[in-house]
Amino acid sequence: MKIKVIVTLKSGVLDPQGKAIQQTLNGMNFSDVKDVRQGKYFDIEVNEIDETKAKSKVDDMCKKLLANLVIEDYKIL
Amino acid sequence: MKIKVIVTLKSGVLDPQGKAIQQTLNGMNFSDVKDVRQGKYFDIEVNEIDETKAKSKVDDMCKKLLANLVIEDYKIL
Repeated sequence: MKIKVIVTLKSGVLDPQGKAIQQTLNGMNFSDVKDVRQGKYFDIEVNEIDETKAKSKVDDMCKKLLANLVIEDYKIL
Repeated sequence: MKIKVIVTLKSGVLDPQGKAIQQTLNGMNFSDVKDVRQGKYFDIEVNEIDETKAKSKVDDMCKKLLANLVIEDYKIL
């Protein structure tokens, strides 16, 4: 089954890429954009029918590879 | 209010980054990972209380800047 994961920077961590997007949007007449934070998204196809097991495997993957837990949080959808 | 957006590659489009992640996971004893597709995630803080209006603005931003509609799809959460 397919598991979706979102990895985002923790709230205190500087996000220059998001800032750049925000400034670009402000310059494009979207002046009411107050903040943009960019993150990563993964669609993971796991060969596992049981949803709980699949999610627990993906949780393990996040901890070991997909997210840097020092500066990032992850959420399995 | 805060609007979340996911931008993903269209299904026919090659995703070498996702492929690299899949191969790395396979090499880390996650052999049942069949496919990984990577996308982008945005948290956009819009100065607008009405949800419908905020989402319609973000939709406009996606079309104009955040997504390349030739190769990408976007979804406003």
